[in-house]
Amino acid sequence: MKKIFIYDTTLRDGTQAEGISLSVMDKLKIADKLDSFGIGYVEGGWPGSNPKDMAFFEEARGKKYKNAKIAAFGSTRRAKVKVEDDDNIKKLLESKAPVNTIFGKSWLLHVHEVLGISPEQNLLMIGDSCAYLSDNGREVIFDAEHFFDGYKDNPSYALDALKIACKNGATTVVLCDTNGGTLTSEITEICLSVHKSLPKKVLLGIHCHNDGDMAVANSIAAIEAGAMHVQGTVNGFGERCGNANLCSIIPALELKLGINCVGKEKLARLKELSLFVDEIANQNPNKRLPYVGDSAFAHKGGMHVNAVNKNPETFEHTNPQFVGNKRRILVSDLSGRSNIMMKIAEHNIDLDEKSPEVAEILETLKRMENEGYEFEAADASFHLLAKKILKKHKPFFNLNGFRVIVEKRGKGEKCISEATVKLEAQGKNELTAAEGDGPINALDHALRKALIRFYPEISNVQLRDFKVRIIDGKDGTAAKTRVLIESSDGHKSWSTVGLSENIIEASWEALVDSMEYMLYEKNEKMKK
Amino acid sequence: MKKIFIYDTTLRDGTQAEGISLSVMDKLKIADKLDSFGIGYVEGGWPGSNPKDMAFFEEARGKKYKNAKIAAFGSTRRAKVKVEDDDNIKKLLESKAPVNTIFGKSWLLHVHEVLGISPEQNLLMIGDSCAYLSDNGREVIFDAEHFFDGYKDNPSYALDALKIACKNGATTVVLCDTNGGTLTSEITEICLSVHKSLPKKVLLGIHCHNDGDMAVANSIAAIEAGAMHVQGTVNGFGERCGNANLCSIIPALELKLGINCVGKEKLARLKELSLFVDEIANQNPNKRLPYVGDSAFAHKGGMHVNAVNKNPETFEHTNPQFVGNKRRILVSDLSGRSNIMMKIAEHNIDLDEKSPEVAEILETLKRMENEGYEFEAADASFHLLAKKILKKHKPFFNLNGFRVIVEKRGKGEKCISEATVKLEAQGKNELTAAEGDGPINALDHALRKALIRFYPEISNVQLRDFKVRIIDGKDGTAAKTRVLIESSDGHKSWSTVGLSENIIEASWEALVDSMEYMLYEKNEKMKK
Repeated sequence: MKKIFIYDTTLRDGTQAEGISLSVMDKLKIADKLDSFGIGYVEGGWPGSNPKDMAFFEEARGKKYKNAKIAAFGSTRRAKVKVEDDDNIKKLLESKAPVNTIFGKSWLLHVHEVLGISPEQNLLMIGDSCAYLSDNGREVIFDAEHFFDGYKDNPSYALDALKIACKNGATTVVLCDTNGGTLTSEITEICLSVHKSLPKKVLLGIHCHNDGDMAVANSIAAIEAGAMHVQGTVNGFGERCGNANLCSIIPALELKLGINCVGKEKLARLKELSLFVDEIANQNPNKRLPYVGDSAFAHKGGMHVNAVNKNPETFEHTNPQFVGNKRRILVSDLSGRSNIMMKIAEHNIDLDEKSPEVAEILETLKRMENEGYEFEAADASFHLLAKKILKKHKPFFNLNGFRVIVEKRGKGEKCISEATVKLEAQGKNELTAAEGDGPINALDHALRKALIRFYPEISNVQLRDFKVRIIDGKDGTAAKTRVLIESSDGHKSWSTVGLSENIIEASWEALVDSMEYMLYEKNEKMKK
Repeated sequence: MKKIFIYDTTLRDGTQAEGISLSVMDKLKIADKLDSFGIGYVEGGWPGSNPKDMAFFEEARGKKYKNAKIAAFGSTRRAKVKVEDDDNIKKLLESKAPVNTIFGKSWLLHVHEVLGISPEQNLLMIGDSCAYLSDNGREVIFDAEHFFDGYKDNPSYALDALKIACKNGATTVVLCDTNGGTLTSEITEICLSVHKSLPKKVLLGIHCHNDGDMAVANSIAAIEAGAMHVQGTVNGFGERCGNANLCSIIPALELKLGINCVGKEKLARLKELSLFVDEIANQNPNKRLPYVGDSAFAHKGGMHVNAVNKNPETFEHTNPQFVGNKRRILVSDLSGRSNIMMKIAEHNIDLDEKSPEVAEILETLKRMENEGYEFEAADASFHLLAKKILKKHKPFFNLNGFRVIVEKRGKGEKCISEATVKLEAQGKNELTAAEGDGPINALDHALRKALIRFYPEISNVQLRDFKVRIIDGKDGTAAKTRVLIESSDGHKSWSTVGLSENIIEASWEALVDSMEYMLYEKNEKMKK
């Protein structure tokens, strides 16, 4: 079986992304995770460019990695400096990383306009630098920067840059689409041709950026054309539009091309890896990411849901379990009866597909979504709605009203928010008030305060997320407002929705559903 | 020059995305925008699947589109129904859309397991349906669902499905990678082979999904292999991982393959189109989107910035202006200063780059944006801010306070909102109150009512749009809220921003800026 080497540059190229910054500790955690996932090379940083990167290598030296070789990144030596005197090269050796990846120019535009040297000088710099690091016992990977742009401009010079690296000890030469704009057909053609010209013992590698929205396809095309080494980042982090996403490349290799890179067992932890890296880098996970996103196997259209029910292969390009993901069925005005049935099954509600209640739930849902509700992301509200239609829900409390006052008494004065809530539970009335940071927060406090007397377990509930959407901004401030709330009791979380012309009333509705659902769940558990 | 037909399905396949739901008004707005951008086909929905989609076609009939033909989507007839009696086919004709796009099965797995009919029956259904719609004067586009999976399973049956559509009046047949998992190399090979087998007068089309992270590369590969019609969505909206992103496909065709689809002039409004659709669909723009994302031409690495300064081509695959985007230099004081200078120049404020006020504006702006303000979309607030720092602004009124009360007196009772505003203008005090649909609307009414006595021109101001964004939902309802308001006096419109933990206070801030800016502008004009 063909083996492809996976080279991760999340810790170096990934941190060039806008809004991503990793501490030394962050980098060490990610390196551990990549190693245990079975990644063969982990590029830790550019020791010559900043002290934080050097600190990573110092820490990493003390660690034992099972699968990963640690690579330090740098450039070929500067133009007028001997290789052994070049600071950047010295720092590479100082990092003591067993692998050194150095980039050099293969596009004459850069040789002339950025470096301002002759083509011959540039080739000497590549040769010198590879030879020196290789002589010092390092595994040398040569990253040919802007290779495709260079090749399209002057194929023989671009090839010369590779050849001099090979001659001087580089064991892998990597074709970089640095500006990320090369088309897949060009990648295929150029890689096929380069692959033929290289010495057999040297591995061909590929490094793509996503500026043309083709980084993954380009990486796979290069592998099909002979590349055996592929560089990328977890979740496609990277400068501008990002690097090729390893979370898409690895499953394509394993599941579609039958190429071993981390093995089936580790592949089943791909989603975990993706979420872990987002978490450390403080990024909101992108739901739509191929393979690993929350929506990657989420079915919404009624006909799709119906077919997936019969055979998942009909609308899934691969089995979500292979990458540690799972199938989800969404409910919306696009759904048919089968969505509702599957959803109802998820919620353990016993119901016959042909019963009139299913039609009633479906109709109610469509009408409400037409008004502006959205149940896709509000599972708890959906559950309560279904139970109410089935007349299987007895409310835990009755609301008799609320009042919210927001007041600013003078310039520079803090805004005061106060809420009053009146409700009835267990046959008793309760009227109470609370303050908060803003009207919704005050309302939340007052509602809890009123309920806690009857249901002390409410004290564990916390609001985790709060989203507001104006449904049709065209009507100015009288537009409808939809509020989505995510609540948690520390173990489980649930989401509810509210809708009104009045943001306070919409929030109120979602808050009330949230408390109601929590009490309902608790009650169900006690029944069992 | 080769011409490729762009077929947008944002309004149909795009709304299959998790979290995306469009009202009829939303759809009409997007259709207008797509038309003015030069898109050739706009698929409005599936009239047979829900009433909202039919309502779109009713409204769209009254409109004149310059570039777009409106297409209605549906399926081939059902198995045991005559084509003229099929509800879904009837609705297609009822929609009166000039183009009908119908999908049919081309994968035997689906024929057997989903439809449960014979391969011959399926072919008859395709033929019947195309013929009937074509005989009724419609332009018929046949979407061959799961074509690539079908072709890999049984090439001759998959081709038969296309051929019967061609024979029966379909003028375009579209190969759909419905499950989105096909590799680019397979797309190329299959499209080349299909292209040879089709009648010359029938156009080959391509419809890709992004489950393998290759939708854009696959669409381009199909075009290179002979497809002349390409389907996709703005920003890649769509079920699961989304559809092929037209915002990546169109510039690749125009700028890299020299193929005309919307023309250079319209292409320069691509970013505007992308943002417009995100806004209507209430999606946070993805910064990393190729071509149109805020980060797409953002340079962070020091060496890159340096090289781009010498020659942008060194690190940019295309000119950002071609797609209406711009270069950004990240983390650099110098770039900050030049941004401010550009912004100040836009606003016709006279100021020397080296003056201390520029530094002060820059600092204030950075501090405020760090808190959560955003001035990119709130030009009027930026203008007032700059004028205030330059001490060139004299306020038209002083605010002494406000109070908002929202009250719900009982179950089923309408929520009442009332606002009181206290202010001082032209040396006089004013205290007044007003009601409204919701707290912000009441506040808006009260503020206007108080000002109108001093500035009757306020009566012309209307709120046009109102947007709320929770900056960090993680703190629950105490998170910060940013409110953006767009106002208009019938001729001109302007936008203002407010930020607070309290949504009422944030709205108040934006409302006040809006009135202030209107009065300021009016005053400036009178000076001239």
